[in-house]
Amino acid sequence: MAGNSFGTLFRITTWGESHGEALGVVIDGCPPTIDLSVEEIQKELDRRRPGQGAGSSPRKEGDRVEILSGVFEGRTTGTPISLLIRNEDVDSGSYEGLKDVFRPGHSDFTYQAKYGIRDYRGGGRASARETVGRVAAGAVAKKILAQERMEVTAYTLELGGIGVKRIDWEEIGRNDFRCPDPDAAKEMEKKIEKVKLQGDSIGGIVEILVRGCPPGLGEPVFDKLEADLAKALMSIGAVRGVEIGAGFGVARMSGSQCNDPLGSMGFEKNDAGGILGGISNGADILLRVAVKPIPSIRLEQRTVDQAMRPVSLRIEGRHDVSAIPRINPVCEAMVAIVLADHLLRQKAQEQGRWK
Amino acid sequence: MAGNSFGTLFRITTWGESHGEALGVVIDGCPPTIDLSVEEIQKELDRRRPGQGAGSSPRKEGDRVEILSGVFEGRTTGTPISLLIRNEDVDSGSYEGLKDVFRPGHSDFTYQAKYGIRDYRGGGRASARETVGRVAAGAVAKKILAQERMEVTAYTLELGGIGVKRIDWEEIGRNDFRCPDPDAAKEMEKKIEKVKLQGDSIGGIVEILVRGCPPGLGEPVFDKLEADLAKALMSIGAVRGVEIGAGFGVARMSGSQCNDPLGSMGFEKNDAGGILGGISNGADILLRVAVKPIPSIRLEQRTVDQAMRPVSLRIEGRHDVSAIPRINPVCEAMVAIVLADHLLRQKAQEQGRWK
Amino acid sequence: MAGNSFGTLFRITTWGESHGEALGVVIDGCPPTIDLSVEEIQKELDRRRPGQGAGSSPRKEGDRVEILSGVFEGRTTGTPISLLIRNEDVDSGSYEGLKDVFRPGHSDFTYQAKYGIRDYRGGGRASARETVGRVAAGAVAKKILAQERMEVTAYTLELGGIGVKRIDWEEIGRNDFRCPDPDAAKEMEKKIEKVKLQGDSIGGIVEILVRGCPPGLGEPVFDKLEADLAKALMSIGAVRGVEIGAGFGVARMSGSQCNDPLGSMGFEKNDAGGILGGISNGADILLRVAVKPIPSIRLEQRTVDQAMRPVSLRIEGRHDVSAIPRINPVCEAMVAIVLADHLLRQKAQEQGRWK
Amino acid sequence: MAGNSFGTLFRITTWGESHGEALGVVIDGCPPTIDLSVEEIQKELDRRRPGQGAGSSPRKEGDRVEILSGVFEGRTTGTPISLLIRNEDVDSGSYEGLKDVFRPGHSDFTYQAKYGIRDYRGGGRASARETVGRVAAGAVAKKILAQERMEVTAYTLELGGIGVKRIDWEEIGRNDFRCPDPDAAKEMEKKIEKVKLQGDSIGGIVEILVRGCPPGLGEPVFDKLEADLAKALMSIGAVRGVEIGAGFGVARMSGSQCNDPLGSMGFEKNDAGGILGGISNGADILLRVAVKPIPSIRLEQRTVDQAMRPVSLRIEGRHDVSAIPRINPVCEAMVAIVLADHLLRQKAQEQGRWK
Repeated sequence: MAGNSFGTLFRITTWGESHGEALGVVIDGCPPTIDLSVEEIQKELDRRRPGQGAGSSPRKEGDRVEILSGVFEGRTTGTPISLLIRNEDVDSGSYEGLKDVFRPGHSDFTYQAKYGIRDYRGGGRASARETVGRVAAGAVAKKILAQERMEVTAYTLELGGIGVKRIDWEEIGRNDFRCPDPDAAKEMEKKIEKVKLQGDSIGGIVEILVRGCPPGLGEPVFDKLEADLAKALMSIGAVRGVEIGAGFGVARMSGSQCNDPLGSMGFEKNDAGGILGGISNGADILLRVAVKPIPSIRLEQRTVDQAMRPVSLRIEGRHDVSAIPRINPVCEAMVAIVLADHLLRQKAQEQGRWK
Repeated sequence: MAGNSFGTLFRITTWGESHGEALGVVIDGCPPTIDLSVEEIQKELDRRRPGQGAGSSPRKEGDRVEILSGVFEGRTTGTPISLLIRNEDVDSGSYEGLKDVFRPGHSDFTYQAKYGIRDYRGGGRASARETVGRVAAGAVAKKILAQERMEVTAYTLELGGIGVKRIDWEEIGRNDFRCPDPDAAKEMEKKIEKVKLQGDSIGGIVEILVRGCPPGLGEPVFDKLEADLAKALMSIGAVRGVEIGAGFGVARMSGSQCNDPLGSMGFEKNDAGGILGGISNGADILLRVAVKPIPSIRLEQRTVDQAMRPVSLRIEGRHDVSAIPRINPVCEAMVAIVLADHLLRQKAQEQGRWK
Repeated sequence: MAGNSFGTLFRITTWGESHGEALGVVIDGCPPTIDLSVEEIQKELDRRRPGQGAGSSPRKEGDRVEILSGVFEGRTTGTPISLLIRNEDVDSGSYEGLKDVFRPGHSDFTYQAKYGIRDYRGGGRASARETVGRVAAGAVAKKILAQERMEVTAYTLELGGIGVKRIDWEEIGRNDFRCPDPDAAKEMEKKIEKVKLQGDSIGGIVEILVRGCPPGLGEPVFDKLEADLAKALMSIGAVRGVEIGAGFGVARMSGSQCNDPLGSMGFEKNDAGGILGGISNGADILLRVAVKPIPSIRLEQRTVDQAMRPVSLRIEGRHDVSAIPRINPVCEAMVAIVLADHLLRQKAQEQGRWK
Repeated sequence: MAGNSFGTLFRITTWGESHGEALGVVIDGCPPTIDLSVEEIQKELDRRRPGQGAGSSPRKEGDRVEILSGVFEGRTTGTPISLLIRNEDVDSGSYEGLKDVFRPGHSDFTYQAKYGIRDYRGGGRASARETVGRVAAGAVAKKILAQERMEVTAYTLELGGIGVKRIDWEEIGRNDFRCPDPDAAKEMEKKIEKVKLQGDSIGGIVEILVRGCPPGLGEPVFDKLEADLAKALMSIGAVRGVEIGAGFGVARMSGSQCNDPLGSMGFEKNDAGGILGGISNGADILLRVAVKPIPSIRLEQRTVDQAMRPVSLRIEGRHDVSAIPRINPVCEAMVAIVLADHLLRQKAQEQGRWK
């Protein structure tokens, strides 16, 4: 109810602040007897760690995950899986100056308004560091999806105005930006360097592709699969827009263009993005999110202090130039969590389909 | 869990099929002692009825709402409010021919895959008619918001490629399209007529504006206000994309452009769309949704029957050319429901803020 | 959140007041393709109608149920099932005198304290009439249980101090009290007549037996099967105590007496009442509830009006002498609803048990 | 959904196994700005530690709690509070022999049936050790209740057949059994010693008293205050029965005896146990639970192994003779958690009561 849990049958609860003792996640509802090792989770966490991609912040977040419960002799037991990541290399001194100032583009103002108290160190609970819990839980969700041969991949479609011109799946893992176009990746790198020098930051677009999703996942009406996916993705701090399939493009299509014809082999195109009426149709699921620029910039900004007095602000310290590509595994995690949840929900109904 | 409920403290459950006996909604969690009349709800329902706007379907949905519980002597009692709308003028004979065919762009295929049974008459539960329950509940949510002087308005920003060039708030109520630009409204009307003759359909973009929202609404992390709004809007059948504030535009902004500076009077611009870190900041909330063309068209389409044999299909019968503007009150309703819910959630925490 | 819904995968929401337009229930999560007729639901409703058993109130509640959604051509579709029962023969005039008085043993005082408004006619939402929605939903839950050959039976163990001395299963359906001991049933009848003449009322004990429950239902820790059953039964207005298996008797047992030994054929006795550690063990589930006397009595009582001024009160009108046996089908319904929910929850996990 | 969370606005999720790395709880929904120290939580944990009361097991559970999040500069921030207790002194070797055997009275059989895998060491998740998370969360709930001057106390009413004859509130804290009758306490001590020598165990009855509860807490229909309390208490492993106020005694009362008359000063007696129609009435809340004997006994028992072959079993190792009095703080914690949750729920509605 206070917003720190997500999902129904596969349900996660994250906790922790940027500069507190630790962060973590409790996963309730993971089915029993699935092989699960700390290495599998660590691998995903390493993908969102700083130092992934040019222009990332130099903070050394070791981010070593511990499995504290729910796994016995290498297999899940059906009981809650508690994952813990201790905060290390925490330098909260540099935030002392931000104690009374509301940073533009951050949630300092709104947390103060809501709670009347806030942990100002590094954004506290509102920090992007909160996403370690999501990524750790996503690693478990991916294990569930793998049982059904489902796979989630996020890649960069646009960064700082530089768009992808072609898609080569092999390239995604080869460059720092998870960019499927190697030429665009090079331009992105230059752009990042340039913006870094300016003390500014940039946004972009990430696309998420789900392969192998069977038909039947998703609930009608409110818990439509795309509705839950939209919520999951929009709950990532930097995301300001979500679209599925043809997305905003549908506004300029006619019905005869937009409808995907069906043939004996299935859908003949995929402008629906793999979901019809809230339920997966067996085609690939395709989503895109708009990622805003990192709000912490070195350039001078106008803001106010807690007494609403004007203040001029330059944010020093270690900050990424873009949330991309570190946000990509977070997008994957959220999509995987939604799909694992709906997979279990659908299983309950399949079983229930008595003759 | 089966997806027919929405909200937490203000929680609605809708039920009913397009051509069944009736449709309705149960609202649980409406605070007591609020004045509520059947006329207030009926007024909202009338806004989404057919015959609203050019190009709408001629079906006479009287859509008379009954209040069956939860209101005593004109005021809410805190107990569940049950609202009922009987289906009238139900002509299900025309659907007999669609019994075994999967209409492109509809959820016929996916419902069959999920449930192994479907009420094929008019789309059954997947029909846009399901939204009467949403609009009825939205009327109650709006009454709650009105207590705090909050107001939700949806208007048409684009239809069939025709965009709004200027915004005149007074115009919205004056034309059939809820279009704030009277010139664009005229062009939209011509476009609709043309597409109607072609037997095709068109999509567009709707913007939703919330005035008067106090700071502090929304929960951090997963139940961010924009996340719940995104889910609410994406759960409307025709919506394929949702964005807030600058939306997808953030992808091409720098941090120094995107951040909203703060002055002693508050935020100096509103690219955030009224929400920071998942919590309302006191500025207007601004959202946009992409609406796909109505999938039911008279033009011939390729599809398959339940045995996956190719079939050629022309959909006759009464169908709108666009979901706009009848979808606008549905968007308003969903946004109002999310805000009423988060208003109550925040009240619980304000009360709880002990010294 | 406002307490009118129950269950998770099989979830019901009831609504309606004693003297309002109608009462009803929405069932979300009923699996598709189950045969369901209005007669099957009506049959259960008829069992809780007045005129069932000696000493029941003469109000003619026709209680005709309508299925408004979720059933197509005689089978469930997986969409919400909305059931409606119109209030007939509503004589609210007799309640006019109770408008300003708090009846002892009723919730008049607490509703006023909580909501600042109350529908005083017949107890409004707090009336036992609210249970029609539960019984209607229970009829659907029983259909699900029947698919797995599970059966729920409630019978009277004690009434007004008259206890059952032997159990003859055949007798339960043969007398007005659902009493498995025909001699006790006769004494109960005399007792009821006597108390009726006195203008007083009596309580008793109901036992609920579940046959055919497979092992594995129930969740560990908080959603233990007995915990959900206790909540379900304690949520019935007249119930003041719940026990399972040996129940309060365990307080005077030793571990060596209380533990049920296991043999190659299963459990050798059943003091556990069919549940160990929150999970069904395959034995019969056995529960007992304490039912308080009907609080509406003709005898004079001391109470206060809304200004807390002392008032002397005699409650005239039609009232049962005991909630037993009309409460028995309500107990059955609640137990069936809990079991149907946990059955679906367990199915989701069984499916999820990958090798 | 998998049963490891409890509550709605004040929601806890516990995790951890008896012989795993650690146990803990995440509390979501604690209001901001409440003073909270690790010592306050530790104090409650110390009350449930072994070595509390005669006949308790000698295992040294240090049970040192760490606050990992949600508290900043000594006050709650409104974000999730994560509490961790590392397992120390874990001797799982002694459980090796129980790997393939189902202990009578334990959930070994049912966990195996449900999950197809189980952590057999000390009962794994089903161990009473799971309650450390509950007690830690209860300490936080008590802080919330204290803001409203509400207080929860559990004491022993009966142990091994020895009942309390008089109640002296001062005595509860003075003896090992939290027994309000010093003479009974002495007899209980003798009884415990005797049963210990026999290698057997005993049960009893615990009463829980809530002082200072304002009227208005609790929701009608399903989430009645007594229903949530019954679930909370029945979810404690050893509890087999729950009653409120006159409890099972109501079965033999007449309505004129059972109803509590109202006078200008409030209720004149309290057979209702402080709750009417699911809502607190301002009187003390009074509950009783039946506690079964500890199932682990040294006496020989008949059981089976995983292949359902008969086995003779003696359980050695460190085990309490009775769950009383260590279960008392667990009962207090669960009641406090329910009340804190309903207090916040009621606050949301009070706020919502607009004129």
